[in-house]
Amino acid sequence: MSGLQTRLLGEILGIRAIDCHSHVPHELPHARSLWDLLGHHYYTELAHSAGMPAGAVDPGRSEAERIGEMVARLDTLSNTVQYGWLMEAARELFAFGPERLTPQNWRDLARAVAEAGRQEGRYRAVLAKANLEKVFLTNGFDENLEAVDRTVFVPCLRTDDLVFKLGDAQVRHRLAVKTGIEIGSTGDLRDAAQWLMQYFVRHGAASAAVSLPPEFAPREPDEAAAAAALGRALKGKELAAADADALAVFALDAVASACRQFRKPLQLMLGVIRNVYPAGVPGGRDLPSKQGSLMAYADLFRRFPEVDFTVSVLSTAWAHELAAFAWIFPNVKPSGHWWYANIPAHIEYDLRARLEAVPQVKLIGYYSDMYKVEFGLPKFNMYRRILARVLAREFVETGRMTEAQAVDTARLLLRENPRRIFGV
Amino acid sequence: MSGLQTRLLGEILGIRAIDCHSHVPHELPHARSLWDLLGHHYYTELAHSAGMPAGAVDPGRSEAERIGEMVARLDTLSNTVQYGWLMEAARELFAFGPERLTPQNWRDLARAVAEAGRQEGRYRAVLAKANLEKVFLTNGFDENLEAVDRTVFVPCLRTDDLVFKLGDAQVRHRLAVKTGIEIGSTGDLRDAAQWLMQYFVRHGAASAAVSLPPEFAPREPDEAAAAAALGRALKGKELAAADADALAVFALDAVASACRQFRKPLQLMLGVIRNVYPAGVPGGRDLPSKQGSLMAYADLFRRFPEVDFTVSVLSTAWAHELAAFAWIFPNVKPSGHWWYANIPAHIEYDLRARLEAVPQVKLIGYYSDMYKVEFGLPKFNMYRRILARVLAREFVETGRMTEAQAVDTARLLLRENPRRIFGV
Amino acid sequence: MSGLQTRLLGEILGIRAIDCHSHVPHELPHARSLWDLLGHHYYTELAHSAGMPAGAVDPGRSEAERIGEMVARLDTLSNTVQYGWLMEAARELFAFGPERLTPQNWRDLARAVAEAGRQEGRYRAVLAKANLEKVFLTNGFDENLEAVDRTVFVPCLRTDDLVFKLGDAQVRHRLAVKTGIEIGSTGDLRDAAQWLMQYFVRHGAASAAVSLPPEFAPREPDEAAAAAALGRALKGKELAAADADALAVFALDAVASACRQFRKPLQLMLGVIRNVYPAGVPGGRDLPSKQGSLMAYADLFRRFPEVDFTVSVLSTAWAHELAAFAWIFPNVKPSGHWWYANIPAHIEYDLRARLEAVPQVKLIGYYSDMYKVEFGLPKFNMYRRILARVLAREFVETGRMTEAQAVDTARLLLRENPRRIFGV
Repeated sequence: MSGLQTRLLGEILGIRAIDCHSHVPHELPHARSLWDLLGHHYYTELAHSAGMPAGAVDPGRSEAERIGEMVARLDTLSNTVQYGWLMEAARELFAFGPERLTPQNWRDLARAVAEAGRQEGRYRAVLAKANLEKVFLTNGFDENLEAVDRTVFVPCLRTDDLVFKLGDAQVRHRLAVKTGIEIGSTGDLRDAAQWLMQYFVRHGAASAAVSLPPEFAPREPDEAAAAAALGRALKGKELAAADADALAVFALDAVASACRQFRKPLQLMLGVIRNVYPAGVPGGRDLPSKQGSLMAYADLFRRFPEVDFTVSVLSTAWAHELAAFAWIFPNVKPSGHWWYANIPAHIEYDLRARLEAVPQVKLIGYYSDMYKVEFGLPKFNMYRRILARVLAREFVETGRMTEAQAVDTARLLLRENPRRIFGV
Repeated sequence: MSGLQTRLLGEILGIRAIDCHSHVPHELPHARSLWDLLGHHYYTELAHSAGMPAGAVDPGRSEAERIGEMVARLDTLSNTVQYGWLMEAARELFAFGPERLTPQNWRDLARAVAEAGRQEGRYRAVLAKANLEKVFLTNGFDENLEAVDRTVFVPCLRTDDLVFKLGDAQVRHRLAVKTGIEIGSTGDLRDAAQWLMQYFVRHGAASAAVSLPPEFAPREPDEAAAAAALGRALKGKELAAADADALAVFALDAVASACRQFRKPLQLMLGVIRNVYPAGVPGGRDLPSKQGSLMAYADLFRRFPEVDFTVSVLSTAWAHELAAFAWIFPNVKPSGHWWYANIPAHIEYDLRARLEAVPQVKLIGYYSDMYKVEFGLPKFNMYRRILARVLAREFVETGRMTEAQAVDTARLLLRENPRRIFGV
Repeated sequence: MSGLQTRLLGEILGIRAIDCHSHVPHELPHARSLWDLLGHHYYTELAHSAGMPAGAVDPGRSEAERIGEMVARLDTLSNTVQYGWLMEAARELFAFGPERLTPQNWRDLARAVAEAGRQEGRYRAVLAKANLEKVFLTNGFDENLEAVDRTVFVPCLRTDDLVFKLGDAQVRHRLAVKTGIEIGSTGDLRDAAQWLMQYFVRHGAASAAVSLPPEFAPREPDEAAAAAALGRALKGKELAAADADALAVFALDAVASACRQFRKPLQLMLGVIRNVYPAGVPGGRDLPSKQGSLMAYADLFRRFPEVDFTVSVLSTAWAHELAAFAWIFPNVKPSGHWWYANIPAHIEYDLRARLEAVPQVKLIGYYSDMYKVEFGLPKFNMYRRILARVLAREFVETGRMTEAQAVDTARLLLRENPRRIFGV
């Protein structure tokens, strides 16, 4: 690593970042046991893909047994960046010395995790060490947000159920319980979306979010078609594909309208197909598809100029379109590197392209997507290293930025842009 | 930068290049004011995307006001390669010293541009400094080419209106005025295409060009369908999509036939969707789509083996297909790095892949696509730096070329190939 | 090249590799003349693409004439990696000194090739020098495997004809001659696939293989539709597209079932469109398409969990999907870098992404796809150099692996994984 890159990295590590997308459970944000880390789908799905039977980590078995199964197979995946996150977390957060986790040494780490997990406010210490100021949550629409520690966490209204599962009576029931609105019409749906957005904003939420399949095409909703579909759902009928689509298009519009009303961004997570591999371990059954195009979203971006859409794409095949759309549409903000694209090879290429083509005030550099706060440090540090490398090699060494300007740009990506865009 | 790379770059900067695609207006080729540079859609679209209202640069306002609006916002996009072009042009062509353009210093640059703009033959001095021997123009079919300075400019027959707008009576009228041919039949269309090509070739044109949307599929035209569509257009009817397509397929065939007859290449610019964002600033409303495939063009390449197709793709998703087609089809010549793909990250990757897989005599390295000659220097120099880097790192350091061979290859890409392929 | 990279490359060159896919003809595995090398479609197609008439290498002309035509044009393609393979083979296997092959010196190389070609067991010496322990063949279903030298070669049942050409009476006849089974029903088809797999396994085969067009979608076969299609074929009718598809879907299922029964992997080569350019030289008429998606194969992967699918993709647009599927599906194993993707730019990017995201025990690093054993050395050495570079720069220098671990990973990719997955 060049001296320049080392200096840039030092500065970048010192930037207090905002993490605008995670799945941290606010009531149990940090690990209480090694299984809370190793049982993450990052690891179980890779171990399963490398030959471990899904039953080896069945919840019916003891944590020690499950950990033993996993640790015995870590060699098969020790090349992956996910494994790198685990070992960096072990070293930096639990003072774990060995460079590999083995059947011989895992109990030392397990003990350290359990001990740290009992510390009062451990998650705040972990986030401080990761230099993360705020971490966004992903909250179901009927989650109770009263107890969220808003000194570090920011709620986010996840709307997947609202958009895609209104045909399910159970979802409508949960909605009625939460909002007091029995969904009998499309108007009720708009009201419910508004009610939820208001509730969330009152409890500190800074955005809504939704993940969408690659072939979905949001458009001006056909309210009559949506009403007819809703009518059939209310009569307990299984919705045909066209009905389900009409209803989803309408519901997404209602969500976007609520975002407009409350001046909050809508996080779009594009390109995931759910349950492609049903025999996989929990969390490890969804996959990206290269099909589809951001062009399908142009209409949404045009109809809601007042709403910031922070957009993540699951397939790297969409990365160029995302940068191009952000280059032209004021309300399209590329956001981080998501899931199957959260790999250094892709981050480095896509980040360089975004930095070369998109106004720097529009880029949300990174978010962790983590399930426990412990992963914030290694994931953000991976990103910080790549950012330092790209800024050093492509911007400072080529004379396009001074060293100080490169640090300013990094500050925008890690901190200032998410603060401004989400208003936190 | 290694010593090797520095030496290669020195040699490459010394190669007098041919720029086979630009939008330079031949009657006003160089900037007369700073607005001629800063008002370019490269900048206004990025500033707008970063938050500037479109009205800030309304032509009703004075140039100074518009420049002020833009300069006040340059910080938002100072990371982009487009900004880099501006500052390199300012430094190299106008001896502007500061490393940033600011509200405090822009009047110095404005004065220098205005002064230089008054020099007789300024554009020739600018092109000499950029080490560009010839610059191709993009000419509407009814442009008068008598006054073109053919010592540096090469006309090019742009056929987009001819291919896609024949349904428009105004376009047919312009065609009749120019060629003397009233379009009453498909035969007239072929005659008009021929007439235009002959006129253009007589005035020094070296090619025709057309930009095509990503889902367009040229094929053996159905002349009866085209005639029927034309008949409806002549009666003043709005053309249905199928009619418009039949007519466009026929017209593209007529253009390719004219190219064959006059032994001129046809420049294909593939993958743009027009007016995706109508609320954007002028020039900043079109976008690439990753959809579609070069496979749709295989039939065209097969039917016109005598025509060289110099092909540019707007979406990087098409880059691999382009290299593969050029590897197999004698008449497919990859051409430069266009618009949304004209970003160092993409140029570097795509250039390396082309150099590793396509015969070097077939590659047109770069063109500027510029609107004023001042952008030729920074755009070509950006490419020259990337070319030097790729040749140094991937070819000379790995032992696949000597340093002298690398310079020979660079000379083919920048000069000898466009000269031979276009016959200039 | 850094000291680290040099040391890693030294270790990696010392790994005895398994080459799991080639087109080496087992009865004539090594070159007897320079034309056996230079007449390869790698070279004739590039020379043709660069302007050589197809007739220049007409088999009716003498080898010396054909070689003369090719050598006269090598300058046009001396930048390509394919040319690099030729020169590395010439230097390393035939002690050819000059750095370019020219009209003046090619007879020296021709003499050296002819002389070496007469040596007893020459191919074994060539493979030893390339440090290749085993090379897989590609065998037609009715090839006689008795004489295969199984000390170095491993047969592979190529099933393209079986899957896509059952409508052709000639293919059914060849099948009957080989297996003794007259195809009169879908049951016969299953029996024939089984019979062939058994025959191949008895003769040392380690897998079956099939190449598939980008839009093909394997799925649960409709046996009635397949039977009806077969019935029409048996009556001598040309099959409509839907019939041909039903039959191909059924036949692929029969092949996968035979793989399951004999516990052998099925090599899937995805994304080629045949005969896109019929006027090309032999072997140089097929092209990749970016269209299609691995998602079309999810059903196949789900239905045959016991079968390892070693998957190669022809279009780099599919590379990200392949890594993602391998990350989740236990039976998906990314395999090498195929044909139009077998270019250093693509290998380096795709290899890095796979190494960062897919368990290392699942990656088949490389195969040669060669037609004569002489190409094994330069192709594998190209890969070894890229592997050393990626491991050095992205894994060891960044602290994610030690040097020894990097060599272990390389050993998995080049040797241990193909050995384990194919059981050789």
